[in-house]
Amino acid sequence: MEKIKPRTLSGFMELLPEKQAKMERIMETLRRTYSLYGFTALDTPIIEASEVLLAKGGGETEKQIYRFSKGDGDLSLRFDLTVPLAKYVALNYGQLTFPFKRYQIGKVFRGERAQRGRFREFYQADIDVIGDGELSIMNEAEIPAIIYHTFAALGLTEFKIRVNNRKVLNGFFAILGLSDRAADIMHTIDRLDKIGMEKCHRLLVEDGMSEAAAAEIMAFVTTSGTSGEKLEKLGQYGGRNESFDMGLSELATVARCLPEFGVPEKNFEIDLTIARGLDYYTGTVYETTLTEHPEIGSICSGGRYDNLAEYYTDKRLPGVGISIGLTRLFYVLEEQSMLSDEIITAPADVLIIPMTDDLSTAISAATLLRESGIRTQLYTENKKFKAKIAYADRLGVPFAVFIGDDEIKEGVIKVKDMRSGEQFAAAAAGAAVRIKAELVRRGTARVIKG
Amino acid sequence: MEKIKPRTLSGFMELLPEKQAKMERIMETLRRTYSLYGFTALDTPIIEASEVLLAKGGGETEKQIYRFSKGDGDLSLRFDLTVPLAKYVALNYGQLTFPFKRYQIGKVFRGERAQRGRFREFYQADIDVIGDGELSIMNEAEIPAIIYHTFAALGLTEFKIRVNNRKVLNGFFAILGLSDRAADIMHTIDRLDKIGMEKCHRLLVEDGMSEAAAAEIMAFVTTSGTSGEKLEKLGQYGGRNESFDMGLSELATVARCLPEFGVPEKNFEIDLTIARGLDYYTGTVYETTLTEHPEIGSICSGGRYDNLAEYYTDKRLPGVGISIGLTRLFYVLEEQSMLSDEIITAPADVLIIPMTDDLSTAISAATLLRESGIRTQLYTENKKFKAKIAYADRLGVPFAVFIGDDEIKEGVIKVKDMRSGEQFAAAAAGAAVRIKAELVRRGTARVIKG
Repeated sequence: MEKIKPRTLSGFMELLPEKQAKMERIMETLRRTYSLYGFTALDTPIIEASEVLLAKGGGETEKQIYRFSKGDGDLSLRFDLTVPLAKYVALNYGQLTFPFKRYQIGKVFRGERAQRGRFREFYQADIDVIGDGELSIMNEAEIPAIIYHTFAALGLTEFKIRVNNRKVLNGFFAILGLSDRAADIMHTIDRLDKIGMEKCHRLLVEDGMSEAAAAEIMAFVTTSGTSGEKLEKLGQYGGRNESFDMGLSELATVARCLPEFGVPEKNFEIDLTIARGLDYYTGTVYETTLTEHPEIGSICSGGRYDNLAEYYTDKRLPGVGISIGLTRLFYVLEEQSMLSDEIITAPADVLIIPMTDDLSTAISAATLLRESGIRTQLYTENKKFKAKIAYADRLGVPFAVFIGDDEIKEGVIKVKDMRSGEQFAAAAAGAAVRIKAELVRRGTARVIKG
Repeated sequence: MEKIKPRTLSGFMELLPEKQAKMERIMETLRRTYSLYGFTALDTPIIEASEVLLAKGGGETEKQIYRFSKGDGDLSLRFDLTVPLAKYVALNYGQLTFPFKRYQIGKVFRGERAQRGRFREFYQADIDVIGDGELSIMNEAEIPAIIYHTFAALGLTEFKIRVNNRKVLNGFFAILGLSDRAADIMHTIDRLDKIGMEKCHRLLVEDGMSEAAAAEIMAFVTTSGTSGEKLEKLGQYGGRNESFDMGLSELATVARCLPEFGVPEKNFEIDLTIARGLDYYTGTVYETTLTEHPEIGSICSGGRYDNLAEYYTDKRLPGVGISIGLTRLFYVLEEQSMLSDEIITAPADVLIIPMTDDLSTAISAATLLRESGIRTQLYTENKKFKAKIAYADRLGVPFAVFIGDDEIKEGVIKVKDMRSGEQFAAAAAGAAVRIKAELVRRGTARVIKG
């Protein structure tokens, strides 16, 4: 038979088992953390009607969309999880309870030009809180806690949650009489990290700012100090613009709640250079960067918006949300060798290797271990002992269990810790307890290296 | 602004939060059960090259495939999880360890004609064990145990795992000199449940069988008794055909191991009417039916095959696998009112309702409860007390926590069990212990009603 060459499309992540086990651990951690904050799971279709998905229309995204016809339907694959959420909330408005807090971890599709580290099919992990008409600032204040606990649960320590407020920015530009230039200015400011203070200042002047205005903008966005000190310095603009005052108060609320939410000072920063999508966000905005790898950019971003579903409904649905580009994050963590090899990635905790033809004792032992919650594989291939041990080694199982005539006679199983080489014999029930204790001990390892 | 009517395409499942919570519980249970048997998680792309996905070509499936072009690529959405597995194993053959045991729970796509209970986008939950050149019969023997423990973990009690062996069938037809008629005969036998003994016999005769042959076929497929009795009756055909003898021995092995694997006799049956896809399976075949709802058909099926990836590689890769059509199963369970309302489907276990303007105590309590693993939502909207309680009711949270001036003064939180109405006050840490104990108690509820 002529063979078709098996291949996976470029731009599509497909992992070998050990790496997939790490990805699964990350997704499981996200589900658990999001659940701890009261977010409910949502699952929307991959395929939507193009008319619905592209209600907003235009933009760079549209060119990247996988769009096709089937029957008489004009269909598209979702390119983010926000538009499907907007559709879902508008469609089910009467049956949802607001504030509606949902998380969704799912694949989205963008036909981007293929390049290293860019994916055409990738996971996003989103959370959003949607209010009906209004939504308390406390929802914005809680977001840094969720970001912090998510990454801490994954094992990350060196990261910074950067927060700004769009009302503060808008108010500041209004005070300077530069409201209509805000987009251009923030675009320049966004490059500050890369081009430096001096060049940034020069570009502002070249753009038509006066030297004084450019200097004031530079001073503003580079306001330094602790969060408290930054807030105090920003106070000098107080009382001159309503939007600014409200934004400053919101920013102060967000910063003030951090200790009670358990967020360490070192993982948080007010960063006045952050704007994010000028036409969508209206309040607090978030970015999260790896302190030791700023070049990677933000690994978790989002913000407060006023109108989730304006293309579908007249209802005012303000919300706040963040998104993790999970596939890209995984790619980056792997490339930076930041994924831990301490966590158990083997398909099983125990490999049972029967040494007799009659497998009934081995099967009973497997059943007992599984009932104790121990992931157990029964090795039943007809191979030499050496091949069986090699199999256990290659899988990286924490424990091998041997059951031969002697063990059967004595009513025990022989357990070998594959890492330390230590062995012990015990009745299956007792062995299960010892194995489980060791697994619990090793289970505290985090998937990302601190 | 003109609005686009929000809608979800027909044939695509999109659940409200409470139902989604049940679906999540089912998927979590499947992941855990599959893991207990040593299966590793796999995730393959939704989109594959059409050439690769359609290597087998032709057939009914091809018409249903979502196929489209993007750039210069001819792409298709996967229509099952078996073809991607074959591609994956052929592609990564050198890096996998055999037997390779994987599970995959993922969406597949088939553009079927829309009708009630039929889905165009649906989850499949598959497990497969793939051998390199050979694979022990014990892998086939373990499958009923996995099916049993999966459905038992979901809460199902009234189901039957029906098992047959293709070698037994092929051997039997060879003994009768009817090998070339086997497909037609099994097609008729497949309808036995619906049309009855008499009509089935008549159809066989109309198809050209002699009265004697038809009678022997009918007697064979309706062999009655316990598994042991059936195996004994089948013994009468022993020694006349090699395939039959091997199949009978395999069937005996599968049946013999059940008690040690913990599968109750009542959930297992040798059923000689089961054939399943005559050109693919070569050994044990499985179907699983709801005892009280036979009309639903099989909810978990599969079998042993000899060549997983023959379209991609010359390597002989025998395997055994089963598949659950998860979206359809969920639909059926819901329609039959078999989903339990006992499990907690609220987004949070605890809703904290602060009664003071200063939220710091409430935030600290939320942080503490979350650290104890309790899913906690902080209610911070500016509403009347009645509206806050109504919110807790609508979400169906098990516990509401009230923190007012009195509680703050006394250093306690007030906890209300929303089901019983009982209240108690305790320091947050102590309250967490009591709440958790009650959640553990309720957590034993299964998602499917027994």
